[in-house]
Amino acid sequence: MKSLNERIRETIHAQNSLVCVGLDTDPGKIPAHLTRQSDPVFTFNKRIIDATAGLVAAYKPNLAFYEALGAEGWDILSRTVRYIPEGILKIGDAKRGDIGSTAARYADALFGLGFDAVTVSPYLGGDSVSPFLEDPRRGAFILCLTSNPGSRDLQYLESGGRPLYLHVAEKIRDWNGKDNCGLVAGATHPEELAGIREAAPAIPFLIPGVGAQGGDLEGAVRSGTDASGGMAVINSSRGILYASRGEDFADAAREETRKLRDAINAIRNR
Amino acid sequence: MKSLNERIRETIHAQNSLVCVGLDTDPGKIPAHLTRQSDPVFTFNKRIIDATAGLVAAYKPNLAFYEALGAEGWDILSRTVRYIPEGILKIGDAKRGDIGSTAARYADALFGLGFDAVTVSPYLGGDSVSPFLEDPRRGAFILCLTSNPGSRDLQYLESGGRPLYLHVAEKIRDWNGKDNCGLVAGATHPEELAGIREAAPAIPFLIPGVGAQGGDLEGAVRSGTDASGGMAVINSSRGILYASRGEDFADAAREETRKLRDAINAIRNR
Repeated sequence: MKSLNERIRETIHAQNSLVCVGLDTDPGKIPAHLTRQSDPVFTFNKRIIDATAGLVAAYKPNLAFYEALGAEGWDILSRTVRYIPEGILKIGDAKRGDIGSTAARYADALFGLGFDAVTVSPYLGGDSVSPFLEDPRRGAFILCLTSNPGSRDLQYLESGGRPLYLHVAEKIRDWNGKDNCGLVAGATHPEELAGIREAAPAIPFLIPGVGAQGGDLEGAVRSGTDASGGMAVINSSRGILYASRGEDFADAAREETRKLRDAINAIRNR
Repeated sequence: MKSLNERIRETIHAQNSLVCVGLDTDPGKIPAHLTRQSDPVFTFNKRIIDATAGLVAAYKPNLAFYEALGAEGWDILSRTVRYIPEGILKIGDAKRGDIGSTAARYADALFGLGFDAVTVSPYLGGDSVSPFLEDPRRGAFILCLTSNPGSRDLQYLESGGRPLYLHVAEKIRDWNGKDNCGLVAGATHPEELAGIREAAPAIPFLIPGVGAQGGDLEGAVRSGTDASGGMAVINSSRGILYASRGEDFADAAREETRKLRDAINAIRNR
């Protein structure tokens, strides 16, 4: 029985890729020829997965995009997760966080959909996180330093000479007793990423913020990976999903994914 | 056009109640005679609402309990929110928090269900909260000091001589420019509640943690209300929903709700 973090390490090695494709599918942005068919969002996801599965370590649907579609969205999400091939990580970007008894419900709901890992907020502390960490085969990426401008509002507050996000990184290290806990740190903060990697040398990082958010890919790869150049997945959503709005969208998504994989690997191998 | 906070003030006055009933409906805990019928969760919610609507200021379904039921849960949640009578506040306990563009999707999804307010995590900062605050008629209760044991892990970290939760309270005050922002502070911390009320004298508080979580009702009412004895809703979930597991569950729920309302009002009027 392999732990989640062991599987992350092996998947990155087997796929020779750190790329995570964010399946944040917006019905208003998918190609027009698909919207004329039935089931356009699932069809779009399926074609993106078919086109990119050989090039990625992970897929990461963001729950918000499916919840916005109501009950049908939940069904589309469930079918999408099941469609992702064996051997590729399935990350549910849910950013949940609630008291223990409620967090257990979220864990049931999200792992029940077939996710290997889900994103979780740290604000409520240990008992809000632990239901996601009970089974070593599954786990959580805990928000540490997020990619958005608002990350400056609270995450940098100094306490005992260190910013809050480093306190969070230390907690996450403590919560990793079953080797199934990672953290989220944005590519928009390349210098801080190095400090977080120092605080948590062996933990997998989920790194959003390259592409549309303008993060620094070189800095993210150099500072976010572990000593072996792995243990990080780097997410791109909009830049891949909407590389073309035409009938060639899947080919264009594959090409963007290949470019991102190769750019990352060139930095890793330098 | 009234702001959310104005409506909260008026609802508390009109109903003469600070009680919020948490509709955290667990299919494993509802009376056996209901589980033999079709649509047991919605039927349970409907009967609880019918029995208690005259005694409460708000209902607060926790999304986790509905997500755990998959696509059907989303439909039950939607029907439940629509069933809540006019003049009573509908709070979606979702504790969402994501980057701005994604938070906007959550806001669409949750306000689209008919909620007046939703709970939101502060960790990602201003741009993660602002999509919930665009329309003054609707808004957010931001997590400040939560009721669970894990609240000790990060929320008490000292920065600049004040704990993190007070920095959060100050941010929330700043975010209240449209009079539609409140905060969540647990009844399990009655002394800290007084400090939070001092930092945010006019903002509505959503106070969980009485009942099953063992919070201090007297302290919560004294410290959590504003100068007029209002601007707070005090949540009870399990203590009301599962007051009886028999055929008399709705009567038992009404009786528990009445007792809670009267106990709160006795403290307010002392």
